[in-house]
Amino acid sequence: MDFYFDFVSPYGYFAACKIDALAKQYGRSIEWHPLLLGAVFKTTGAVPLTTIPLRGEYTRMETARTARFHGIPFQFPVAFPIATQAAARATYAIRDQHGADAAGQFTKAVYEAYFNRAIHIGEPANVLQIATECGFDGAAIGAAIQTEQYKERLKQEIEQAMARGVFGSPFIIVDDEPFWGFDHFYQVEAFLKSGKF
Amino acid sequence: MDFYFDFVSPYGYFAACKIDALAKQYGRSIEWHPLLLGAVFKTTGAVPLTTIPLRGEYTRMETARTARFHGIPFQFPVAFPIATQAAARATYAIRDQHGADAAGQFTKAVYEAYFNRAIHIGEPANVLQIATECGFDGAAIGAAIQTEQYKERLKQEIEQAMARGVFGSPFIIVDDEPFWGFDHFYQVEAFLKSGKF
Repeated sequence: MDFYFDFVSPYGYFAACKIDALAKQYGRSIEWHPLLLGAVFKTTGAVPLTTIPLRGEYTRMETARTARFHGIPFQFPVAFPIATQAAARATYAIRDQHGADAAGQFTKAVYEAYFNRAIHIGEPANVLQIATECGFDGAAIGAAIQTEQYKERLKQEIEQAMARGVFGSPFIIVDDEPFWGFDHFYQVEAFLKSGKF
Repeated sequence: MDFYFDFVSPYGYFAACKIDALAKQYGRSIEWHPLLLGAVFKTTGAVPLTTIPLRGEYTRMETARTARFHGIPFQFPVAFPIATQAAARATYAIRDQHGADAAGQFTKAVYEAYFNRAIHIGEPANVLQIATECGFDGAAIGAAIQTEQYKERLKQEIEQAMARGVFGSPFIIVDDEPFWGFDHFYQVEAFLKSGKF
């Protein structure tokens, strides 16, 4: 399962909290693909939900309600939206050095810091602190995310994702079948169960 | 339950196909409020889903998949999007003359014509034909929807809806609790069941 998300996305956070159980139940592995929605939105013309009249207020209420509904600890970040380059590049660096499960562990830790511990994950220092808390080498990751290699890697991931039709967060592709949105997990599960629609 | 929708909205159609059973199960009545998303989008800056790069293609695939998933007969209309003033005004005229259940019957007939029988419901003649098929007085409704009374009525409904925070279709408000989107029906049901979150 390819899991695309932006660390700034509350529904991406909800999905990250639930996707492991889903993958495990159906014997699937997960590839974690952090993206920058800002780059994607240049193509789609979308804007952050919270900046939209009427819809912005609804989003703040609705994310809290959905979190309660699914038993996910959540508080809407004071700093929102923020830039998530550092966290995204760090995820790919960890993926390359420690594998997909480590990338997943780090992803969930970053999301939890942002959406439950009020930590500003736009700050590279905070991202590296989280990496260290997870048991990774924060200094080495701090060096990696400043290299052209990981700047370029993130750009390529975004281009490849858009080439596959990804336009939002969370976005899951299973066996070439695309699913957008946390609210479509019930369809992801039905697809995993039956292999078709 | 206040049910807000635009006749051009495929997810509004899906909601209209399922909302009766939900209301009946929990002993609720439904008020049917057709709106014009074009008027709402002037405030929110939104555009029709199918016109958005990447997301447009996804929407065409996803609506068909969701229809299959829920066993709803569906074909994406060739004429899309279209103006739905005539159908909306006719719904309010039928509401006033025959009550909420009649408005619901007509709403479902119009939706089914557009999303399953390839009938262009932007054409007033087709809308009146559907009204006649439902057993209403097509000629009388045709006269009503050209009056200032029903032009003004639709405008007021849109203003009142936006004052309540409505920004999309379908949108359901139950006991002042707002729910946007067909994919949130599971939360509507949970709310109806428990009366809270």
